[in-house]
Amino acid sequence: SGYDLPLEELRQFRQWSSRTPGHPEYGLTPGVECTTGPLGAGFGNAVGIALGLKMAASRFNSTEHAMVDACVYILCSDGDMQEGVCAESASLAGHLKLNNVIAVYDQNRITIGGEIDLSMSEDVGKRFEAYGWYVQYCDGHDHEELETCLRNAKDQCRHPSLIVAQTIIGKGAPTMAGTAATHGSPLGIEEVRRAKEVLGWPLEPLFYIPQEVRLVFAQRTDETRHLYQQWQEQHKQWKRDHPDLTEQWRFHTEKQTPGNLLEKLIAAVEGVEGPTRKLSQNIIQEAARLIPQMTGGSGDLEPSTLTLIKAEASITPASLKSRHMPDPSFSGRNIHFGIREHGMGSVSNGLYLSGFWLPFCATFVVFSDYMRPSVRLAAISGLPTIFVYTHDSFWVGEDGPTHQPIEQAWALRVIPNLYVWRPADAVETAAAWAHALQRPGGNHPSALLLTRQGVRNLERPPGFNPKEIWKGGYIVLEAVNAKPQVILISTGSEGGPVQEVRTHLVNKGISVRHVSMPCLELFKGQSKEYQNYLLPPTSKKIIIEAGVSGPWYQYADHVIGQESYGHSAPGEVIAEKFGFTAEHLTRKISNYLDPLI
Amino acid sequence: SGYDLPLEELRQFRQWSSRTPGHPEYGLTPGVECTTGPLGAGFGNAVGIALGLKMAASRFNSTEHAMVDACVYILCSDGDMQEGVCAESASLAGHLKLNNVIAVYDQNRITIGGEIDLSMSEDVGKRFEAYGWYVQYCDGHDHEELETCLRNAKDQCRHPSLIVAQTIIGKGAPTMAGTAATHGSPLGIEEVRRAKEVLGWPLEPLFYIPQEVRLVFAQRTDETRHLYQQWQEQHKQWKRDHPDLTEQWRFHTEKQTPGNLLEKLIAAVEGVEGPTRKLSQNIIQEAARLIPQMTGGSGDLEPSTLTLIKAEASITPASLKSRHMPDPSFSGRNIHFGIREHGMGSVSNGLYLSGFWLPFCATFVVFSDYMRPSVRLAAISGLPTIFVYTHDSFWVGEDGPTHQPIEQAWALRVIPNLYVWRPADAVETAAAWAHALQRPGGNHPSALLLTRQGVRNLERPPGFNPKEIWKGGYIVLEAVNAKPQVILISTGSEGGPVQEVRTHLVNKGISVRHVSMPCLELFKGQSKEYQNYLLPPTSKKIIIEAGVSGPWYQYADHVIGQESYGHSAPGEVIAEKFGFTAEHLTRKISNYLDPLI
Repeated sequence: SGYDLPLEELRQFRQWSSRTPGHPEYGLTPGVECTTGPLGAGFGNAVGIALGLKMAASRFNSTEHAMVDACVYILCSDGDMQEGVCAESASLAGHLKLNNVIAVYDQNRITIGGEIDLSMSEDVGKRFEAYGWYVQYCDGHDHEELETCLRNAKDQCRHPSLIVAQTIIGKGAPTMAGTAATHGSPLGIEEVRRAKEVLGWPLEPLFYIPQEVRLVFAQRTDETRHLYQQWQEQHKQWKRDHPDLTEQWRFHTEKQTPGNLLEKLIAAVEGVEGPTRKLSQNIIQEAARLIPQMTGGSGDLEPSTLTLIKAEASITPASLKSRHMPDPSFSGRNIHFGIREHGMGSVSNGLYLSGFWLPFCATFVVFSDYMRPSVRLAAISGLPTIFVYTHDSFWVGEDGPTHQPIEQAWALRVIPNLYVWRPADAVETAAAWAHALQRPGGNHPSALLLTRQGVRNLERPPGFNPKEIWKGGYIVLEAVNAKPQVILISTGSEGGPVQEVRTHLVNKGISVRHVSMPCLELFKGQSKEYQNYLLPPTSKKIIIEAGVSGPWYQYADHVIGQESYGHSAPGEVIAEKFGFTAEHLTRKISNYLDPLI
Repeated sequence: SGYDLPLEELRQFRQWSSRTPGHPEYGLTPGVECTTGPLGAGFGNAVGIALGLKMAASRFNSTEHAMVDACVYILCSDGDMQEGVCAESASLAGHLKLNNVIAVYDQNRITIGGEIDLSMSEDVGKRFEAYGWYVQYCDGHDHEELETCLRNAKDQCRHPSLIVAQTIIGKGAPTMAGTAATHGSPLGIEEVRRAKEVLGWPLEPLFYIPQEVRLVFAQRTDETRHLYQQWQEQHKQWKRDHPDLTEQWRFHTEKQTPGNLLEKLIAAVEGVEGPTRKLSQNIIQEAARLIPQMTGGSGDLEPSTLTLIKAEASITPASLKSRHMPDPSFSGRNIHFGIREHGMGSVSNGLYLSGFWLPFCATFVVFSDYMRPSVRLAAISGLPTIFVYTHDSFWVGEDGPTHQPIEQAWALRVIPNLYVWRPADAVETAAAWAHALQRPGGNHPSALLLTRQGVRNLERPPGFNPKEIWKGGYIVLEAVNAKPQVILISTGSEGGPVQEVRTHLVNKGISVRHVSMPCLELFKGQSKEYQNYLLPPTSKKIIIEAGVSGPWYQYADHVIGQESYGHSAPGEVIAEKFGFTAEHLTRKISNYLDPLI
């Protein structure tokens, strides 16, 4: 198809350092637009890409120029249709009337376990009609039928389209077609030989592409190359006609952020104190003003996650059938994802993959569990999706253990390539947002764990350089001498109480350094020298985090955390009962230190 | 209603140690049949309870005696309807034609964020029809309409039933009814006062229940007490008529397991070597023979997870309309959950909550992420659900990073009250299963992480007592003296290579103890003495685990793991590239030790 991927790569299928891994990986293989291995994920990504294109079209298209009018095609399976993430994403796409999504459901009715009848007898077409999709049926092996359906979907439809294409799995394999045996295993030399005999193909070479097929693909490659050139020319004309939008286009497609973003976001919370979710709310307003390609929303909980961009409208269902004309329904930047966390994660990843957006999405920390597979895929694929997780730790309080994230911080920290932030106060929350938006070290997703309860701004020395925070771990207050007896390390909301503990210990004549560790991944990326400087082996190091904290022992001599589920009660009461007030912490830490220093 | 829960408890709503937490918690409050806080979870539980009852009915009911014929009622919300886990469970319930499920969908069209129209416009009734449900509509405030729907659902239906009950949220609150303000906040004294005025109720006491309501409840309590007594008498008669089933009933309802289960399961893999999923397959057959209440299945992947109970039939869609007659469709013990991991977890928890079953469910380790919320709820609620997770670590190989669980072991270990097993070989796999089924220390869920690749059975001294494994960490091979210089700690499949490393070090004259740590939670439950005996501070302790392993530092001086995503390649190739062969490990460990001993 003209991509830089020779047939030789196929021989290396599923081998070390090949560009043809067992499942397609974004960034590894040209032409792969998202990493889709886990079932249902690709469907959600596609809905996000489609939404991102609609939103871009509403900004950049004009009556003369349709700069953004692509359709997003999904090829999906019986397995995709069973997954909840697909159901969630399909419902959202139907709600928003995304008529630039065309899903071809390859309904072969075979899964790894055997016939789909073992576990599924629903009417998928009817279900998608219920979501508001336009549904057609065809014989998936009849190319004319399929083409008619695709044309209907593309040209006549006000809704996203599902084409239920009935197929036979492994069609053409003389003995294995229609069976689960073709799902995950190679056909084998003998079956391939016999399939070729039936098709009248030569038996050699083993990897054979008929000339006829090559010609069709070559012709199509030429066509699309020509279309691309046309688009480039139109884009030049568009730039001349719309100089005002050219800068916007560059912002969107090049994902630029202002160089002084950190300073600007800190200024947005200058002198403000409160819950970090509330500080985040201020920061979001300023960030959205500075970064036009920033968009996002919440899984219902807008009044709780405080993630609404106030100056912007909400995305609403399409008001126009046209994919060319800018639709005002998509001119806003607030997305209401619904109570569909897993879908929200996949759609958000898709928004980035559309090429135009820096997406964030929000729910409670505890519900990061619901969307974990999409967080992981963002991490594997290096997508800069920002996951805003409010209602951190047992301080959630009255809702009880089901809603109190005790283990989620570490559950997220063990995901490679995900940057997990637990900011302590205003300046750290601003630094977390700025880093997540700007990613100075390259692309990766970020999770921002924010409090519902109020926190005090930490005391820092005059002249403190906020860029220190981007080291992931840094000195908030130094000991009286450079060789502290004790280092108190806090994360997130524990920063405030830990400063009180420090004062108490200092008053007792102990030299204490206060280190804040808002982002372990960044700290791990620092030089060994810095790490040893910050946490020297000669000091007693104590970490305080209101959650499952055992894994912190790799950085400390002693750890204070909460290793069991909470209770339903006001956060202050729980802090009292769990011994997480400044007074309790002072006692616990003194008890630990007394025999040692 | 006759439960031991006085009105006083309501005054303690959401307070420390009250029995009325913010969300209902199973085991805490009488009458609460499952912990349902997180949206959609209760729906899946209910489907599981209904399935468990159908399966029990098929065993214990006869033409004369309907010992099990209850209906399961779900009261669900707009939010439940948006969640994928609800979609997955509903599709399964429709497939199995569970006509003992009656869901009342309280369609008030209000969520925390505002009107449901912000994010949802699907036709939920039509969607449920597509799943194979019987759908009715009514005014949810018209009790006669609702009763007619309930009677239709209960008496005439071959399918699970959804009653879409249109309601007004907070009905009766003069100014707040119909608004999002009533969703999560108290009405406040003034609004309550005005609501009471409208109803013509006295303003005092604040917590007021009209005599009329008390009478209705008292009458109903009498009725149900009478029904219960009737059932008890019929049950006595049933026992007399079916002495053969009485023992079975006891097994099912008292969750008994044979005292010698550990020995029996070990015998089932005596002298067998191979992948631990394959060993698990043998063990499941023996366990299912010994434990009639053991049931379970896989999220499609039966040929890969190897979890089929071979002597038993599969659960298939209901063949009878009656809830009284035993339906042969439910006489088997293999459940095909479909590719619906989150639903599978919730349904499995429900199977236990039905009162008759010890459930297991299976998928790949990496997809534990898809069902994490249900694993967590099992842990919070103390349900002994067994989560079988095969295809452990980068050894999954060719499918690449999306399918290789690198961080899942620790992501599961941080969940309080979940017992995570990573068995090394045949005897450890048997011990893991026996412990998960028998739970000598009380109820908790277990996760069994099993390999796809072959593992060698570890060398152990003669007379080794397999009950040692239930300590979670234990000495596999002792050093030549009781004060080892080095302790090599392995988990799961790393046991084999670590024994090779040990031999090499021993040959160099170093005294080395090999500790296997298949279940950290059990080890953490041992006495401090045992923990210090097993891992004395005087020895150099090195942990080897093929995954994200940093959190292990709390138990070791040095850790060897895999802290980034894998590649697509055969497992052996990855082990070679990542330095996880015995030869590589020997080199790494020697390099670490050489400067030290």
